Amino acid sequence: MKNTDLSAIYSPSDIRKMDEKQLKDLALAMRKALLEKVSAHGGHVGPNLGMIEAIIALHYVFNTPEDKIVFDVSHQTYPHKMLTGRMQAFTDPAHYDDVTGYTNPQESDYDLFSLGHTSSAVSLASGLAKARDLKGGKENVIAVIGDGSLSGGVAFEGLDYGATLGTNFIVVVNDNDMSIAENHGGIYADLRLLRDTNGTADNNLFRAMGFAYRYVHHGNDISSLINMFRSVKDINYPVVVHINTMKGMGLPVAEADKEKFHFSAPFDLKTGEVYSPNAASETSEGYDDLFANQLLERMKELPELVVISAGTPGVIGFSPARRKEAGSQYVDVGIAEQQAVAMASGLAKGGARPVVALASTFLQRAYDQFSQDIALNHQPATFVVFYGSIFGINDETHLGFFDLGLLSNIPNLLVLTPTCKEEFLAMLRWSEDQRKKPVVIRVPGGAVRSDSKITILEDYSCPSYEIVRKGSRIALIGVGTFLPIMQQAAENLAMKGLDPMVINPREVSTLDTACLDSIKDFDIIITAEDGIIDGGFGQKVASYLGDTDVKVINLGLPKEFLNRYNAVELQRECNLNPDGVADIVMSALK
Amino acid sequence: MKNTDLSAIYSPSDIRKMDEKQLKDLALAMRKALLEKVSAHGGHVGPNLGMIEAIIALHYVFNTPEDKIVFDVSHQTYPHKMLTGRMQAFTDPAHYDDVTGYTNPQESDYDLFSLGHTSSAVSLASGLAKARDLKGGKENVIAVIGDGSLSGGVAFEGLDYGATLGTNFIVVVNDNDMSIAENHGGIYADLRLLRDTNGTADNNLFRAMGFAYRYVHHGNDISSLINMFRSVKDINYPVVVHINTMKGMGLPVAEADKEKFHFSAPFDLKTGEVYSPNAASETSEGYDDLFANQLLERMKELPELVVISAGTPGVIGFSPARRKEAGSQYVDVGIAEQQAVAMASGLAKGGARPVVALASTFLQRAYDQFSQDIALNHQPATFVVFYGSIFGINDETHLGFFDLGLLSNIPNLLVLTPTCKEEFLAMLRWSEDQRKKPVVIRVPGGAVRSDSKITILEDYSCPSYEIVRKGSRIALIGVGTFLPIMQQAAENLAMKGLDPMVINPREVSTLDTACLDSIKDFDIIITAEDGIIDGGFGQKVASYLGDTDVKVINLGLPKEFLNRYNAVELQRECNLNPDGVADIVMSALK
Repeated sequence: MKNTDLSAIYSPSDIRKMDEKQLKDLALAMRKALLEKVSAHGGHVGPNLGMIEAIIALHYVFNTPEDKIVFDVSHQTYPHKMLTGRMQAFTDPAHYDDVTGYTNPQESDYDLFSLGHTSSAVSLASGLAKARDLKGGKENVIAVIGDGSLSGGVAFEGLDYGATLGTNFIVVVNDNDMSIAENHGGIYADLRLLRDTNGTADNNLFRAMGFAYRYVHHGNDISSLINMFRSVKDINYPVVVHINTMKGMGLPVAEADKEKFHFSAPFDLKTGEVYSPNAASETSEGYDDLFANQLLERMKELPELVVISAGTPGVIGFSPARRKEAGSQYVDVGIAEQQAVAMASGLAKGGARPVVALASTFLQRAYDQFSQDIALNHQPATFVVFYGSIFGINDETHLGFFDLGLLSNIPNLLVLTPTCKEEFLAMLRWSEDQRKKPVVIRVPGGAVRSDSKITILEDYSCPSYEIVRKGSRIALIGVGTFLPIMQQAAENLAMKGLDPMVINPREVSTLDTACLDSIKDFDIIITAEDGIIDGGFGQKVASYLGDTDVKVINLGLPKEFLNRYNAVELQRECNLNPDGVADIVMSALK
Repeated sequence: MKNTDLSAIYSPSDIRKMDEKQLKDLALAMRKALLEKVSAHGGHVGPNLGMIEAIIALHYVFNTPEDKIVFDVSHQTYPHKMLTGRMQAFTDPAHYDDVTGYTNPQESDYDLFSLGHTSSAVSLASGLAKARDLKGGKENVIAVIGDGSLSGGVAFEGLDYGATLGTNFIVVVNDNDMSIAENHGGIYADLRLLRDTNGTADNNLFRAMGFAYRYVHHGNDISSLINMFRSVKDINYPVVVHINTMKGMGLPVAEADKEKFHFSAPFDLKTGEVYSPNAASETSEGYDDLFANQLLERMKELPELVVISAGTPGVIGFSPARRKEAGSQYVDVGIAEQQAVAMASGLAKGGARPVVALASTFLQRAYDQFSQDIALNHQPATFVVFYGSIFGINDETHLGFFDLGLLSNIPNLLVLTPTCKEEFLAMLRWSEDQRKKPVVIRVPGGAVRSDSKITILEDYSCPSYEIVRKGSRIALIGVGTFLPIMQQAAENLAMKGLDPMVINPREVSTLDTACLDSIKDFDIIITAEDGIIDGGFGQKVASYLGDTDVKVINLGLPKEFLNRYNAVELQRECNLNPDGVADIVMSALK
């Protein structure tokens, strides 16, 4: 076997000259490079290993970038990036960070959209196809979507529309029989049936939705894929090409434990052991563990307590062992946030105690359900928001600092912002027990923080700001993660002879007007929140006190889609650290 | 035929004593009463006329309210209300307004949720079923959903999860072969096939999703329905009961023109002619007509201009005749807002000029797509928002005053707020032409207003507040619909010797800081917006000027789900009229 020279591949035209033997060698070389990169650097492991052959075949058969491919989530596009001018970012460790983990139009014309949320590729591609038809174009339009992503409602909406296009529209369903974790949903029985019958079963979801249908059983065999893609190239009606691939293919530990190697920090290629940069701190629990352990304990007392995940159990601490322990009190609805939130309304109405746990960036997919099904109906469900912080995920597609304003401007919804583990667990416990109102609890960002001095309440349902440091003239209000910043800033200012009050608002959805009234004769009030300023907590304070003489200064993040930012630098730029806050105070006093 | 005494029916137990002949008489009497009410009072006509028999049969067979029925949208629940203690609201004109147009738990224990947005019933019911299972209950849980509603992604998510419940779960699909207008989507070919084959076709969407399946061809025949519902009562696995009904049944004009009589103002029962309370003003166009006519004109010049509706063409002025005129430049994606918005991103990327037109209350269903697919990707699509105003729809389920903050806090999205038809059409025209950024245009609320003095810009992409009245010390900033209120307030104040400046901000997503800086030495700035204060425009102004001496007072709506409010009274309560604004100014000056 001749060694393939990956560095000679600059664009898909370089592989279109190859014969199938050379393509297979290429796949091997790419897999080797990918394994080296992801094991050393971390990243999405299984999704990329499983799609090497399909992506080679797609670029081989289709005339990209004239022909257009939209990858759903786009976490499986490392092979695509390798073939489209970005090989060095996968072969040279010094350049590993040259590319993002998702498609990105700023990197390449082969990347059509910046995307990372699930299930939208078919809709996006349907727009490209309709634009082509309006303009009289002839290019192929292809959406690539995984079986896990099919559970999201927007994927269904896209398929439902796409089936009616009446022109070229190719949906490649990459079926590896896995979501991030195992799949959940009625459609997966049908996908299994189709795999088991080599695509011949009468009961066919895609045909029932109006698509023509083709099946490739060996979805990691380049020849089979090329033959199939050739057969649908330039087709003049919508077709689903269902390919059966192996997630994690070529890495035995990933083939064996697909969930663990969906995404991984750097790991040992042979043993699969994940390297932990902070081995010392591994003994301490994360907020996900704290959450899961408290819930598992409570489930024993409360048979009607149920935790709901929308396809991301790993985010919320529900490992396979914990899911097993929870039994029927754990529900994974698939990547279907709308279902998770609306179902929680039904659960609460039916007398159960639902706790929906979500990543900040994904909860916005269920805004209408938060508003209509939960808040309008006053259903006492609990929502626990992970990664809602600048210390969450820093990809522009997965930011966690838009949720505060989004949720706190919905009527009836109580949005709690704990500052430490003691407060988080107390709020969670209270919310599990209460039957009064819908509650959002935003998990603090960053490492777990303990504060034994925090005051725990019996009831968090009414606004009640905690004065954690008494003071005068100056008030520093720190929301959630940022309370300690305000506490440290106060100490800095105290050394300069000032005496700032520090306030933990505990929640951001309703103002504690009694507390604010008591400080309206102060000189300065500074708010700091772990989210964008626009639409957030600080602006409510500024508005409430707009007709008084106190100066109100809101600190927070700009309304921007930041990408791969450094959190500490960002804090500095936004004065969201003790020195920054102290400087703001000193300037304002001048 | 004995006349049925409707006034003797207080609850479903009253009909459970009847024989089938009596039930049929009951249906006739209910239809007669419904026809009288909707023709005299207005309301949802077709959906209710088509569901009389099915609702009688459901309450006859199932032991409501122990057995639980969730009605999707719940616009078809007039017969349900008639049978559950609210008959008088349908037989006595003096009591017509005693009930809302949707299910409402405050009215009756038979109403489980307050709902009005589409496609959520299956998800809500799945939560009720899961709660029952956790608690060891035995009741039946039934979701009733129309064929049109099936196009919404959350319905798919609910079905996908519901199919896995493994216990009693009954989904009644009310198939009348219509959405509000005609259906659009690949699934509708399958529904037709199932109807045409009496439910026997192999290609079966519901079976492919994991449900057992039953079909009732005569969905307006009480006997057939009762037999079917009896056969699935207490079933111990998920089943879809697909019933074929006639929308508008019993009213010939509604059977003939299902779209016109989906919802109607009062009309003549014989001719179907809709009574217009303001016949004189009928000659003037509404904003929907202005929108549709301008678009139809522009489509002739721009073959890549395309209007997208999510199943509500009537809201946006696209009558059947105009849809025909637009041809392939009009797209209805079904009740699928996520698809509408994500598809627009693909269209814009592909070089087309998409204009998505939505009702304010429904656009929130696509928040994630606005954020990720449109804004993050800077795609130059245009979104035109109807009913975004207190003068929109006043049902708590359909409010139009949460959109301003929701959209204006998304990065990169330009949210324009025209104040009159000249400005609306100019902004629309500009947005159709530009390729720079995504633009939202919020149609003014209330009757069409003309203002020949408004300044039209060549380019609306940068914040540029218009000073429509010069003045000093006091600035009144009126957003969109509320600019005229500020203009009149200024005149009132001028008579008291004051000289207020009046500002039209034109947009609410970015501050014109140069303008705000120029008035920061004023005494008072008042903002008024046609939306909730929380997260809105005024709070941005208050925050920006928080460290200055100018007093900023934000006027707008409280963060509440108001229900069937009177707009004029609401304006008075919130000081959102000229006298209220003038009073606020006078008080602040004291």
